[in-house]
This record gives sequence, structure tokens and C-alpha cells, in this order.
Amino acid sequence: MAKTLKRSPLAPAGFPALPVIGGVAFATVAAGVRYAGRSDVMLARLAPGTAVAGVFTQSATRSAAVLDCQAKIGSDATEGAAIIVNAGNANAFTGTNGTAAARRVTQGVADALNLPEARVFSASTGVIGEVLPDERITSKLSDLAASLDETGIEAAAQAITTTDTFPKGASASFKRDGKTVNIAGIAKGSGMIAPDMATMLVYIFTDAAIAQPALQAMLSDLTGPTFNSITVDSDTSTSDTLLLAATGASGVAIGDNDAEFRSALHSVMLDLAHQVVRDGEGATKFVEITVTGAASDADAKTHALSIANSPLVKTAIAGEDPNWGRIVMAVGKSGAAADRDRLSIRFGDVLVAEKGWVAPGYREEDAADLMKRDEIVISVDVGLGAGAATVWTCDLTHGYIDINADYRS
Amino acid sequence: MAKTLKRSPLAPAGFPALPVIGGVAFATVAAGVRYAGRSDVMLARLAPGTAVAGVFTQSATRSAAVLDCQAKIGSDATEGAAIIVNAGNANAFTGTNGTAAARRVTQGVADALNLPEARVFSASTGVIGEVLPDERITSKLSDLAASLDETGIEAAAQAITTTDTFPKGASASFKRDGKTVNIAGIAKGSGMIAPDMATMLVYIFTDAAIAQPALQAMLSDLTGPTFNSITVDSDTSTSDTLLLAATGASGVAIGDNDAEFRSALHSVMLDLAHQVVRDGEGATKFVEITVTGAASDADAKTHALSIANSPLVKTAIAGEDPNWGRIVMAVGKSGAAADRDRLSIRFGDVLVAEKGWVAPGYREEDAADLMKRDEIVISVDVGLGAGAATVWTCDLTHGYIDINADYRS
Repeated sequence: MAKTLKRSPLAPAGFPALPVIGGVAFATVAAGVRYAGRSDVMLARLAPGTAVAGVFTQSATRSAAVLDCQAKIGSDATEGAAIIVNAGNANAFTGTNGTAAARRVTQGVADALNLPEARVFSASTGVIGEVLPDERITSKLSDLAASLDETGIEAAAQAITTTDTFPKGASASFKRDGKTVNIAGIAKGSGMIAPDMATMLVYIFTDAAIAQPALQAMLSDLTGPTFNSITVDSDTSTSDTLLLAATGASGVAIGDNDAEFRSALHSVMLDLAHQVVRDGEGATKFVEITVTGAASDADAKTHALSIANSPLVKTAIAGEDPNWGRIVMAVGKSGAAADRDRLSIRFGDVLVAEKGWVAPGYREEDAADLMKRDEIVISVDVGLGAGAATVWTCDLTHGYIDINADYRS
Repeated sequence: MAKTLKRSPLAPAGFPALPVIGGVAFATVAAGVRYAGRSDVMLARLAPGTAVAGVFTQSATRSAAVLDCQAKIGSDATEGAAIIVNAGNANAFTGTNGTAAARRVTQGVADALNLPEARVFSASTGVIGEVLPDERITSKLSDLAASLDETGIEAAAQAITTTDTFPKGASASFKRDGKTVNIAGIAKGSGMIAPDMATMLVYIFTDAAIAQPALQAMLSDLTGPTFNSITVDSDTSTSDTLLLAATGASGVAIGDNDAEFRSALHSVMLDLAHQVVRDGEGATKFVEITVTGAASDADAKTHALSIANSPLVKTAIAGEDPNWGRIVMAVGKSGAAADRDRLSIRFGDVLVAEKGWVAPGYREEDAADLMKRDEIVISVDVGLGAGAATVWTCDLTHGYIDINADYRS
């Protein structure tokens, strides 16, 4: 980006202390792909035997790197693997030249680390429609290979940022049979955020020993209630990629749908997803929207996303206005089943509307006080069934217009 | 609204001269429903025998007046009819109290004009969730009835505005058998504009003699390529109403799907729809988006609306940035069929991208010059089939945030 953005007011205090994941090493470099004076490429080397699972954007215009990664998921893990990511150029909608540029990068990494090219996963994030200047990356690969370091994950999180105002990390651990299983993940993303069966760029590492199909199944399953339940601006990236790598270095074998591992993985995914929303372009409010009583879980999510993506709801929140009529509007337009006269709406614990009209005891000053907070909770009960869903979003402010109208990100 | 908005830079020079429609008379009054110091209620009286057709919002939370109008369309036309509209209060999501308030208004009009209540069509537009203070309207009905005037259509257009910055009117006429058929219409709307099988508040009058079923069929058919092809902010109103009244005063009988009448009606509907976009909240650019080569017309419209509703596309246009990568993104996320490598994109007559990448002769300065204009034309060819659609929208600017975050409209 052309100018430095102020750190989001919703950012966590600092980057968390993340555990070292045995079998994973990181390196970063300032390659000048687009940005000057900052690291913009990260390399992660994964030990032989590491299982890699992934979920990707469903965009019909997905990038060369995404198509390449999708083809490689599930490939033979005997000889280890690597992940190479650049910021500043998405290499998306760049035709066969873009595909060739991405291939030169993955082949370069394979050569530098002595790996099969089929085990090198790449991603590119940034401006769409310009071919990746791959020689800026490939000329740095020997430097990167020489500086790989097990403790480099925070630098890696920083290197993959674009309009992000803070690097994003999260971890979880649990003990089993006297051994510790660790999960650590990083993410980037703050605009073009409405993941659909996928996410922004997210890399999660664990030392659990787990077969690729089991890893993939849990990852795919948990993407729905985490990354696929956030939205900043309803726009879906061409580059969304989430990779999860399990090295086995803990010596702890994890079976299909292991409850403890699943719970730990869910907490890391949800934490990173929330951090993406907290860094939403121009965000000043973190908003949780829960819909209950819908005809199905899918209907509940449709309603919740309709509220979360409504420009009129998002601007009302920015203005600290408890304008619940706009929530009624968003439920009404969503296309999912609703009955005006069964709807109830709460801001925090304040009952605002019920049975098709304002609640008898509602005082607007109560809701207005809640709207002044950094974190807003909106609950809607549709009154039709048992379907429920929760999504997270942010408000729509002048900051979003500044970032996206005033220069090219 | 709490403050006066500056007239849209995209507004026409002035209100057009509209023909008098025999059999229709208008009156307006300042009833103080919400706004002070301006007219906010309009009444239209329709002569006996007037056929009335309508299309309405498909919102699941539609207002009392919308439900009432829907039930009355097609009722016996022998004794004439009336339309009563107020601005400032939408009387939506107001439960049985709201329904009763709406009924007191329609009954009051029926009494004042000696009409059956079943022929009084009402609409309310403005803030959602507050019961209509109907006595402010009913107390003015005798004044309104006494001031009905065939030339009052411009005042009527002004009375129904909310955040509109100009009143909207359009007309068309044609001759047949030595007689003239006139069509004149008015509309309001500038935010919460993403009509779905319906529109904002629009009232169109004609002196054609045409049976209600034929009138309804043409109206429903023409709504798709006109009002249902515009979007300001992807939000759909709870009150959208379009009524078309044919008085027959011209003495010209119009049959099913009459090509000349259909064409004239289409031009009035399209003109009014465009005026709604030109008054889009905060708009500085009028944008036409045409998608061709889609697998079906429905797919083309899905792509076109995905582009038109994308906050990233709309902010790029506001910033006069020919950021065609965001158009690729919007096509990719739309859910309709697309093939990245067959896509081509033009700004005006400048070919920007083709076959999955930037066009060989493309110079960004050519597109950048086009983006400085008030009117932007974007053409996308998907390269898959014969499906085509055109939609119209505006840009997303700081003005939209000002209007919707800073006070309750």
C-alpha cells in the first residue's frame, strides 16, 4: 500500500507468544515485490512426513497459486514440503504468464530446499491483474533457505500483510500421555473479506501426528463456523487460502475427529478469524450477530450474513445508532424464511423488538449506551424453528472509503 | 431527515414538464408526520373506471401499507380510486397498531372522497419501527380533498421525498387515431435501493384505456429490466411500491402487450429508475454495467449485480481508479458461471482485459481519463453463451457514510 495505516483500534495488545512447532521453520525477506522497506515474502519449510490440508476460495476467478495448491493437496508427504507466500501482488487474472511465474517460484523453492515441486505450496496476495515479478522472489530464495528458523513465525505473520494494520497469530496446546500437542497459526486479511468455503491467507501448524484425510476432514468441517462466518465487506478474494500442516513432531497420534484436537484447532481458527474482522478496513466496532429460531442453520446464517453485510446496518453501527429497523430490513431481504410478527431483536441484553414491534419496556437510551462500546452483540430470534448461526463483522466507516477509494490496495 | 442534503451532482437540470393525465388530480400538504416546514403527504384521486396495477417489495418484513395494497390490486374499478402517501415514517414493523393506523388513513380518504375503502391505496416511507401518527394525516384530509388539482404532479413528487435531493418525474406520449396517449410518473428513493421484483415508491399515471390484467402484465414484465435492474447499496426496502393507474381519459383503447404503449411505459420506468440511481445517497458517478456472453440472462444479471453491489468496485469508482481487478473479483464471487480465461472487460470503449489477462494494447491512462467522467460504462463479456443484462448503480463515497452513520433517516 502507498501509505501507512493506523493500527486498528480493535487490535489486540500485541502479537501473542506462539509455541515452536517441531518440524516447521520460517524465513522472511524484503524482496520488493511491490512494497519498499518491509519484508514481503515468507518461506516455511515443513519436515518430511508432514500432512498438509487446505481449503480455498470458491471464486470462479481464483488465482494461479490457488489452482496450483488445490492440485497438490494430498500429494505424497514422504519428502517434506514448503510454503512460499508473497504480499503486494496477487498474481490473479494474469493468464498463462501468471501461471508460469508462479511455477518458477515453486520450482525455485523446490530446488533450494531439495523438495519435489509437487510439495511446494504458494500464495500471492495484493493487487489483481499484474503478473508476479517472480525474479524478485527467486533471487532471494538462497537467502531465505539459509535463514530458516523455528522461532520465525511472528516475522512470517508480518511479511504476509497487505492493508492489515497488525500481524495476526493464535495458538492452542493440550497434553496427552505426558506429551504436549501444539497448534500455532497466522493469518492476513482486512478487506475483500467474505470467505466462501475458504478464507483469506491463513497458515496453521501443529506437531500432532495425524493422517492427511483426518486433518482435511476436521479443517473443512471447522471452516464453516470460523472463517466462513466472518465478513468485512461482502467481497470475496480470488486468493483465499488456508493451509494446515501437521508435522507429527510431538509424537502424539491423533485419530479421526479427535475431540480435544478438534476443539484446540477450532479455538485457533476462531481466534484468527476474529482478528481478521478486528483488522477490517476502517473498523471501529467488532460486531457479533447471532440468529436463532430459524427454519434451519443455513437460513440462520443467511439472515446473519444479510445483517452483517448490509451497508445500512454497518453505517448505523458506525454512527452508534441503535437503528433496529435496519435489522428488520436486512432480515426481510435475505431470502430466508421469516415472519415479521415473530421476530425479536436484542442489542446485548436489551430486548429491543418482539412480536413484530418495539418491545414494551424498550428505552432507546439503554441500547444507545451499548452502541458506544467497541464490541456490539446483536441477537435476532426468528421464531420459526431451531436453526442457529453466529457471524462476526465490523462497521462501515469513512476509514473504509479512505482505504479503498483513495489508493489502489 | 435532520439536515438538508446538497442536490446530487448527477441530478437533471430541473423537474421535467409533465403532461396532465385526464382523470388524475393531486394535492399535497405539510402534515408534520416527521419533517417540519415541508409538504410530506400527497393525495392522488383517480377517476371512476381507472385500472390500477402494482408491483411490491418481496421483503419478508414488508410494511402494513404494502400488504394492504397487494390485497387491493385488481379490486372492482367502477367507483374510482385514490392513492395516499406520506414521507417521514414507514409504518413498517409496527404490528397490529401499525396496521390499524394505516387503515384509519385509508378509511379517512375513502370517507373524504366518497370512495370504497378497498380502492384506497396507501404507502408510507421513512423511519422503520415507529407507528404512523395517523391523526396528523387524517386531520388534513378535508384540506387535501379541497385542493385537488390536475396540474399538481410536481408538488406530489416533492412531497414523497425522504433523503432524496431532487424530485423525480418522467413522461412519454404517443399519438394514435388522432388522439394522444400520455404517461407521466413520479418516484422517490435514494438509499435502501436494491429492488427485488419491485421498486421504491413510484407512481405512474396514463390516460390510456386498458384492462387491469393487461396493465398488470406489462408492468410486471417491464419491472425486471428497469427498477429491478438498479441498486444503490444492495439493501431492499420494506416499503417498495410501484402503482400504475390507467384512467382511459384519452379514449384510446390499448390491448394486451401493445408495442407502442409498452415502449412508452418502458421509457418512463427506465427514466425514473435512472433518476433514483442519480440520487443515490452520496453518489458522484452514474454507472452502467452490461454483462454479455453469460450462460443465461439470469447469470448475466447475477454477475452485473455482483459488480454493482461490490463495495470495492464502488469505492474504486469513487476514487476514479480503473481497478479492473476488483471487477474480476466480483465476477468470480457472484456464483454464476464464469471462466477466468474467457473474460473480457471494457471501461467505455477501452478494452482493459481479455482472455484472462490485461489486454495487450491497454494503457491505464486511457481508462483513468474515462473514470473522471460523471457517467461510467463498464462492459464485461463472460465468453460462455448469449446471456445478457444491464444494471445501473452509483459509487460508494464518504457522502453515503455521512448520510447513514451520522443521523437516522
